[in-house]
Amino acid sequence: MRAAAQLDEAAAGLVGTGAGATREHAARALWSCVTEPGDRVTGALLRRLGAEEAWTLVASGARAADVAAGAGVERGEARSALARWEPRLDPGLFTDAVERARRVGAVLLVPDDDAWPGGLRELGDHAPACLWVRGAVGRLAAPSVALVGARAATSYGELVAADLAAGLADSGLTVVSGAAYGIDGAAHRAALTADGTTVAFLAGGCDRGYPSGHTDLLRRIVATGAVASEVPCGAAPTRWRFLQRNRLIAAAAAATVVVEAGLRSGSLNTAGHAAALGRPLGAVPGPVTSAASAGTHRLLREFDAVCVTSAAEVRELLGLAVEEPPASGGHGSAERTRVLDALSIRVARSAAEVARRSGMSIAEVEATLGSLSLEEEAEADAEGWRRRRRA
Amino acid sequence: MRAAAQLDEAAAGLVGTGAGATREHAARALWSCVTEPGDRVTGALLRRLGAEEAWTLVASGARAADVAAGAGVERGEARSALARWEPRLDPGLFTDAVERARRVGAVLLVPDDDAWPGGLRELGDHAPACLWVRGAVGRLAAPSVALVGARAATSYGELVAADLAAGLADSGLTVVSGAAYGIDGAAHRAALTADGTTVAFLAGGCDRGYPSGHTDLLRRIVATGAVASEVPCGAAPTRWRFLQRNRLIAAAAAATVVVEAGLRSGSLNTAGHAAALGRPLGAVPGPVTSAASAGTHRLLREFDAVCVTSAAEVRELLGLAVEEPPASGGHGSAERTRVLDALSIRVARSAAEVARRSGMSIAEVEATLGSLSLEEEAEADAEGWRRRRRA
Repeated sequence: MRAAAQLDEAAAGLVGTGAGATREHAARALWSCVTEPGDRVTGALLRRLGAEEAWTLVASGARAADVAAGAGVERGEARSALARWEPRLDPGLFTDAVERARRVGAVLLVPDDDAWPGGLRELGDHAPACLWVRGAVGRLAAPSVALVGARAATSYGELVAADLAAGLADSGLTVVSGAAYGIDGAAHRAALTADGTTVAFLAGGCDRGYPSGHTDLLRRIVATGAVASEVPCGAAPTRWRFLQRNRLIAAAAAATVVVEAGLRSGSLNTAGHAAALGRPLGAVPGPVTSAASAGTHRLLREFDAVCVTSAAEVRELLGLAVEEPPASGGHGSAERTRVLDALSIRVARSAAEVARRSGMSIAEVEATLGSLSLEEEAEADAEGWRRRRRA
Repeated sequence: MRAAAQLDEAAAGLVGTGAGATREHAARALWSCVTEPGDRVTGALLRRLGAEEAWTLVASGARAADVAAGAGVERGEARSALARWEPRLDPGLFTDAVERARRVGAVLLVPDDDAWPGGLRELGDHAPACLWVRGAVGRLAAPSVALVGARAATSYGELVAADLAAGLADSGLTVVSGAAYGIDGAAHRAALTADGTTVAFLAGGCDRGYPSGHTDLLRRIVATGAVASEVPCGAAPTRWRFLQRNRLIAAAAAATVVVEAGLRSGSLNTAGHAAALGRPLGAVPGPVTSAASAGTHRLLREFDAVCVTSAAEVRELLGLAVEEPPASGGHGSAERTRVLDALSIRVARSAAEVARRSGMSIAEVEATLGSLSLEEEAEADAEGWRRRRRA
């Protein structure tokens, strides 16, 4: 089949899926069936030629030289990319993916759509070709924070994740995560319970209820938020796709916070993507005796992550709210401390005695006693000065 | 009495205390009885005139103009300082302090003594006039780390303090702290148990067993380490002196680590002194749900403290040992991951099938399968390739 006719037929196949069905949509959907997430040659080709022309090129049996010229890469890299794509240039894969998408009501988003998360544009040649989304696609572009962490979370970690997610949801921020067991699940659930919006990026197709124990959670997320993936419906969640999915979480959210993570947790990979993109990165501390916090401590030590302990501090990370610094003791607090030190609650003392005890001059002591008296911190009678008992 | 004769008599009084008994020692001991810790005019006068001349000046009834010229301060500040010292220009205070020092075997250290902790010199005009020390004075100048924290510590905090102190003591570092209940006590005790050296700086006289519940601990510290104070024996531990004592801990140690601290813990004051001196500052994280760790988390957020979770990381803070970064996945790890993802343990797959599943070229898959086979991660038979079960 000629590539142009294939694009028209693919676009026709997308009609009725609830989203755009242009040739641009069709071309990107076809690309998502052929390439793997994060493929640099695919990304470069889509950016430089546009999705339609890139697809036409490849589907018409392009030579490595054409791909190299189109993507601006070396001939060898182009040849290797063509060899990667070749085993998947099968029209049945696209038809199957669209049929699965239609069955679960998943729609297709491309970068030109209003609902496209703007942060994904910063991925450059590693940007996804498209997103397959279930739920409220409009939620994807809202201001959001990623809360991620270990599957092997402790009850402490899940408690803190829930607390942060509820606080962020309360302040109108969308909570982004990966729908995994542990921290991810606690964050999604708390956002839902707080009547907030939450978005999950999956490593496999958005029609797959993965992990299986979160089928119901994913259904609840779809009801008010969104579940998105760059791989087509039906695609399996592989380890490679988990690692690449993490870059979507980091890029889609305005900031990433790792709540709890062992030293080998995949959430450290998400943190690495956030740092590479120059996004604010937060890490929640935990007991140093807990292996489940060793990864967040490493982020604090080695990745310049900001220590965050509350939703307010996460908002601060986003530059949304800066708390007032606590008031300092103010002028004269040293004198006050020293005079109060030298006073007794029971024994009355003369100003001279207080001067000797505090190492201050009698004049300074008298001035300070005066203000302490006004503040009802000290009191005098015929015998001398006493410190007043605190209420 | 003329000031020169008073210095001679004071020096004679120091004979037999086990340390220096020069006029320099005498002058500084006299100053410690007259001034309060951290007094800037005292410090400036001692630095610019030397202790003997400074004492002679003040004990001879100096005018404010003389003190101002001697210390390089404004006339008003000099007048205020003279007024502070005046109530304490009582020879009986010195005699009493020396008598008390003799009773407990406390010796006097001045900056020229070899055992003087070099770090205290960086306090400039806020340096102590002298130190009164019980125990092994030679321990004061050894490489050391301050471990400090809240009196209101949790069992978690005490456990971590003990663990760090034992680890540091094992590596030959002296553990410096303030002998308070909670973190300080746990650090001292663990250092002693590890047969290490520990040093306590007290806010009151070094002859006073304060806090009273630590009388026995202080006795044990004196037996192998040292207990030091800049205020004379007999002096009470006032709040002002606690705050100033903290600067000695921060200045004497090569680095300061706050193990556990509430938002109002005095150990944050010690941390502030360490930061002001440009010394490495570490903070131990804890559960964000624990008020006893809120202060260390603030240090991580606002004071650029380094997150430390082990004695090795404290040593790293000192620049004493840098751990090798963990090895990266190395070349080809992406391909390995993707091929392993595409293999099954049970079902055999052809290289072409693996290429399709992994989104790689058949040639790349074959090369990767080859090395996975050598590493015994994958194996082939007549049916195709399988992933090998991990041992």
